Parts: sequence; structure tokens; C-alpha cells
Amino acid sequence: MLNATHQQKLILASQSPRRSYLLNQAGLEFDVIPSRFDEDRVPLTDPEGYVRTLAESKAEDVAKTHEQCWVIGADTIVLMDGAILGKPKSAEDARRMLCRLSGRVHQVLTGFAICCRAKDHLFSDVATTDVHFKDLSPNEVEWYIHTDEPFDKAGAYAIQGLGTFLVRQIKGSYTNVVGLPVCEVIEHLIRMGVVQYRV
Amino acid sequence: MLNATHQQKLILASQSPRRSYLLNQAGLEFDVIPSRFDEDRVPLTDPEGYVRTLAESKAEDVAKTHEQCWVIGADTIVLMDGAILGKPKSAEDARRMLCRLSGRVHQVLTGFAICCRAKDHLFSDVATTDVHFKDLSPNEVEWYIHTDEPFDKAGAYAIQGLGTFLVRQIKGSYTNVVGLPVCEVIEHLIRMGVVQYRV
Repeated sequence: MLNATHQQKLILASQSPRRSYLLNQAGLEFDVIPSRFDEDRVPLTDPEGYVRTLAESKAEDVAKTHEQCWVIGADTIVLMDGAILGKPKSAEDARRMLCRLSGRVHQVLTGFAICCRAKDHLFSDVATTDVHFKDLSPNEVEWYIHTDEPFDKAGAYAIQGLGTFLVRQIKGSYTNVVGLPVCEVIEHLIRMGVVQYRV
Repeated sequence: MLNATHQQKLILASQSPRRSYLLNQAGLEFDVIPSRFDEDRVPLTDPEGYVRTLAESKAEDVAKTHEQCWVIGADTIVLMDGAILGKPKSAEDARRMLCRLSGRVHQVLTGFAICCRAKDHLFSDVATTDVHFKDLSPNEVEWYIHTDEPFDKAGAYAIQGLGTFLVRQIKGSYTNVVGLPVCEVIEHLIRMGVVQYRV
């Protein structure tokens, strides 16, 4: 595999294995240093402002102690009828979420931030993808809950896991639904000269 | 991992590792028996008719010798301005395709067929997804060609590989772009009672 060329060291401020997978897949090399930012400190305002503030806060938290590095922060939420669906706390909770998503279109929002203290640089944006679920039978919902996949996932599903059979169509960035809009993140890194794809 | 329940034996009539990956990911168990159908025997008519005929022919070819099994056949093509982009034969060919896709929207079509001789059953359909590429610089095109990823891929890219950084947005089924519209295939298998997702 040919990796992209890096001008500066890159850090992913997230412990999500899915985000690491996505950046690896696109040929980037980076360190993983999860932020210790307390998410509860961010008030739940509008969904876009919320994920953007969280992404910025996570990136800035890690950048504080790694001033020369470029740090990527991100936060992903699932929105149904304007309400945020978090990670299910119980089977009952997962059941309620999956039944609510069944046969309908919801939104996945990822706020992402790219920060470098030495360059006094902070960029952030939000990517939104529409996700259309197939109609789920009660048996299918129970089966999926039984796989345990829903429990650590916002909205109670993983599009890149067993949950792949739940999703009929999407409109927008696919990687955004997995956890990080890769094309948009890399475009900004290329624009800033942090990453170069050249032979 | 919890697998779906199978009532009958399932066969994937394709040697594509990406299609196997997708069906595995959705919890299905199946054998892989690539068809020996000669693709050149199918005349290049309209794109939809073409991929559908190919998918049916591949499924039927394997079903002939496995009458009791349910066989899945598929064929995927990339369409730009109505023209089919095949697998690039040279770096020059890949360069031409990638430059043509740069910054624009193209279509990925997968014809899929599900066949069971013992039940006298043949179902087929075509899934279409719009794929929007980012603007590619000449350096990015050369880098991507250098990774060798384009060479065995229709349209000279792999959305699930390093090519993940090329794709800004899609509209439609993501798994269709990888090579098989999983939700649609599984829905038909559920409808026919071949596969059950139940605890």
C-alpha cells in the first residue's frame, strides 16, 4: 500500500476504531490520542452547533499538549424528526430506536474539526447524510438486538456491520455515517498542505 | 456473531471477494462457486438490460448443477454520460477514466439475480447509485494509479479501498457501489423464506 505523504504529524483525537479504520483505508498515517474532554460540558443546543462544538473541543483538548501536530476531532449523532438518538441503554431502548427508524429516512451528522496550535489554525464543519432504512419486521429487530451490535452505537445500528442489511439507500457521504466524512477531512488537509497525494 | 437462519443452502456465483465480504458482513452463510459463463456471449445493449442478463446468466449457470440451492449472481458496471467504463487496461486508460470522473456524478449499476431450479424461481433486478467524485488534481490521479488499486476495478476505483478519499457523496445503495446491493438481495431472500433473521 502506498501512503499519502505527510508534511506534519497527524493525530486522531478519537478512540473510535471505525474512524481509525476510515483514515487508514484512505492511506493516512496518524497517531491516536483520545481527548479527555468532558462531553457533558457542551449544552445541547441545535444539533449542528452541538456536534461542531464537540468536535472542536475534542481537537483543541489534544492540540493543547501537541502544539506542532495537526489534530482531528469528530462527533457523530443520529437525528430522527429533529431529536437526537444516543447510544441505547437497554434492549428496550434499542428496540424503541430501531422501530422508530424502520422504513423511514433519518439524518446522521458528523461534526469534524482540524486544529493546529503552532499555525493558529482551527477549521470545523458538519456533514449530513440522509439514511433510508428498510421496513423492519419485529423478528428482524429482535435478531439485530440479539447480536449486541446496537449497544455502543448512536441510533442503535452500525451501517458497516451486520446493520448493513438495514440500510436501503443513503444520500450524502457514506463515511460520514460510519463516523468521519473522509473526503471532506482529507480535502481540508490537502488544502492546508498537511497531506499530499503525490508519487 | 449471530448468523441469520437459512432454510436452504445459498451459493454466491461470483469470485469477487468484495461480494463475499458484503454478504458475510450481513450475517449470511454461503458457498462461493464462480460461474463459468462467458460474458462475451451477452450483447452490449442498454446498460440495465446488459447487467441484468449477465447476473441472470451467471446465477443460472451455477444453478444448473446445484438444483436444490439458491444461487446469487451479479454484475456491476460504471456508467459515465451513458458510456460503460470497464476495467482499465493500462495506466493511460486509468488516467483517462479518473479524469473523466473527476468533479462529476456518475452511475454505478449492479444487476443481481436470485435463482433456484428446484423451485423454478428466477428473480432479477438492477440497483443504480449516483456517485459524486471530488475534483482530482493531476498529482492525486497519478498517486492513485501508482497504488495499483484502479487496475482490476470497473471505472478505475474502489470506493471501499484507498479510493474512499475520491468520493464526496453518493445517492442510493452504498453496497451496490461495492458490488452487491445487500439490502435488496436480502429482502428478496427473506420474502422467499430462504433467509430468516429471527432469534
